Amino acid sequence: MNNFTFYSPTYFAFGREMEKEAGNLVKRFGGTKALIHFGGGSVVRSGLLDRVKASLEEAGVSYVELGGVKPNPRSGLVYQGIELCKREGVDFLLALGGGSSIDSAKAIAAGVLYDGDFWDFYSGKPIEKALPLGTVLTIAAAGSEGSPDSVITKEEGMLKRGASGDAIRPKFSILNPALTQTLSPYQTACGITDIMAHLYERYLTNTAEVEVTDRLIEALLLTMIHEGPRVIADPDNYEARANIMWAGMMAHNNSCGVGRSQDWNSHNIEHELSAMYDCAHGAGLAVTMPAVFRYVMDHDVMRFAQAAVRVWGCQMDFAHPEETARAGIRALQNFLISIGMPKNFQELGAKKEDIPQLVKTLCYGDGRQGSISGFVELKEEDCAKIYEMMV
Amino acid sequence: MNNFTFYSPTYFAFGREMEKEAGNLVKRFGGTKALIHFGGGSVVRSGLLDRVKASLEEAGVSYVELGGVKPNPRSGLVYQGIELCKREGVDFLLALGGGSSIDSAKAIAAGVLYDGDFWDFYSGKPIEKALPLGTVLTIAAAGSEGSPDSVITKEEGMLKRGASGDAIRPKFSILNPALTQTLSPYQTACGITDIMAHLYERYLTNTAEVEVTDRLIEALLLTMIHEGPRVIADPDNYEARANIMWAGMMAHNNSCGVGRSQDWNSHNIEHELSAMYDCAHGAGLAVTMPAVFRYVMDHDVMRFAQAAVRVWGCQMDFAHPEETARAGIRALQNFLISIGMPKNFQELGAKKEDIPQLVKTLCYGDGRQGSISGFVELKEEDCAKIYEMMV
Repeated sequence: MNNFTFYSPTYFAFGREMEKEAGNLVKRFGGTKALIHFGGGSVVRSGLLDRVKASLEEAGVSYVELGGVKPNPRSGLVYQGIELCKREGVDFLLALGGGSSIDSAKAIAAGVLYDGDFWDFYSGKPIEKALPLGTVLTIAAAGSEGSPDSVITKEEGMLKRGASGDAIRPKFSILNPALTQTLSPYQTACGITDIMAHLYERYLTNTAEVEVTDRLIEALLLTMIHEGPRVIADPDNYEARANIMWAGMMAHNNSCGVGRSQDWNSHNIEHELSAMYDCAHGAGLAVTMPAVFRYVMDHDVMRFAQAAVRVWGCQMDFAHPEETARAGIRALQNFLISIGMPKNFQELGAKKEDIPQLVKTLCYGDGRQGSISGFVELKEEDCAKIYEMMV
Repeated sequence: MNNFTFYSPTYFAFGREMEKEAGNLVKRFGGTKALIHFGGGSVVRSGLLDRVKASLEEAGVSYVELGGVKPNPRSGLVYQGIELCKREGVDFLLALGGGSSIDSAKAIAAGVLYDGDFWDFYSGKPIEKALPLGTVLTIAAAGSEGSPDSVITKEEGMLKRGASGDAIRPKFSILNPALTQTLSPYQTACGITDIMAHLYERYLTNTAEVEVTDRLIEALLLTMIHEGPRVIADPDNYEARANIMWAGMMAHNNSCGVGRSQDWNSHNIEHELSAMYDCAHGAGLAVTMPAVFRYVMDHDVMRFAQAAVRVWGCQMDFAHPEETARAGIRALQNFLISIGMPKNFQELGAKKEDIPQLVKTLCYGDGRQGSISGFVELKEEDCAKIYEMMV
């Protein structure tokens, strides 16, 4: 196990009706004037926005609003949010929604206290300070409610890039599983896939002797395998949604990823797809992961065999571990298809002829030098082959 | 799953030589004058105390020292520590050692800012404020490095009681697995047992639909089963110690215990043993747990069968689930014996004739009304039978 530091100081309020605590929590963490940041209709239609506003008013916290966050959130709205916060003297960001709203709010929080272009943070500059931030989560997926990470897409060139820093970890996150009951089965399945990807990205490590984090990751994958089909079959299953929601947070606050190298190649390869086609990140991952895993499997057959046996319940083929490894990847893909995820480029809306462009942006975007690194270093030709396997 | 809040803001610095960061971390969390609080010889002999003092000096943090913490830490030293802190103007507690040093430091931290008798907190009064506190952990066991809990024994009547509050959660904890390499196999095994007990106490729940926390608890138990025998066989195995150390923290910061009722009857029943005989808490738990589990098994046979199958690798006996449940408890006890733990009163140094006194203190101590509650409510006669099963 490698040396590490771990710091997850977010206060989580989990359960039915917990959004009523939003006002008290903003106040507790020092906010006097909040920017409520959200996406579109569902937060309004469900009445969540009104309930949160009532809670802020009751706690004596004033607010301004900025809606319009889109999936794969854009830099344009971030610039708008930064201006608005400066003009209005906002001292707290309150994101309502999923990873998109939260990531956009994180970018604004960092940008308000920075003199330069906030995009610097998404090009590698460390985030040193940010306005405090809280969240009311409406989809279990990105894990942004408990993470120090944010992913934003820059309209020019459709570059999708991440930034990270303890300063943008939420001070509090409100997780009410009932708020996720209005999601479509497709959105729910995209979230499940994203959570599973966060777990696999950590599972694929080159660090030896990491039994505790291996076991924790496997535990969360087993939870998704148990609860995923239940919630797809019955969207109103509060209990299944609750288990998925806590697993989604634990999958990405890094308590199960500490002290080990991680992969993140599937995320990098997928980001080009959702940037170019504006497809759902989870759907892109469902197509990307099996291809990546098949391509890199030989790098550590036993690791894939371990996942197959411990997570997917495959029998170990001691004479042919690679058969077991393959069976595990097949089981993953079959599971994702069974919950309604796409299996190839066509179902995703991606095009074979775009592969050269995808590879170019992937391997040379934002200062990369012709490859991406992770569990295995992938050069241009590797990435091209992986995209071709997805066709 | 029940509604819950979860807040674990401790900064963890994990790995080799991390104790060198002690000074910087005290400063980062606002300390200018620390009380270094520790037990006896090992912290001195190993050179840890000197290294920590050097780190504080380098960071410009002054300090006073108070050693002498005993296992099952006593109220007498807490009173001394409170006086010392007040007299010296200490503004930060730095505990070196295991759960005993940390719990004693937590009691001092709360007592310094309180006008009354600190024991009030161990009789049910909520802790509202405390001096900030950091730890340098030298044994993986109590989980106090990441928990809001403290257990102290009052000399009068040898009452062993707990207190809890976010104010006494450590601001930082330094976990260097190499510092645990000097522990005897017996101490190491006691720590392993304590960690496993923290997991079982959470596993035994009456809350339905808790797949995610069930799986996380099982993951940590599987880690202990894998790493425990390795570290007993080879005390210098850094990697096994590292896995156990992170598992020990995760087992007790409650990330795997949220949203579910918990048991804690084994801890309560054991506390009377370590209070009366001053035996190691882990050793007491090794004798207590199998007896308690056999006694309460019928309350939820399927829960014990699940542990047997998922954790201990037992085959499910679908016609006779109680056989599987029993096999799991037997596997637990055999495991604990295999790492050197006692199996009965005699090996523990406890006496059958003391059972009436043990039951009385247990069921009527500190305001209890003739029973203890948890997974199952246990009355006097139940507790007597359980102690008798341990003879």
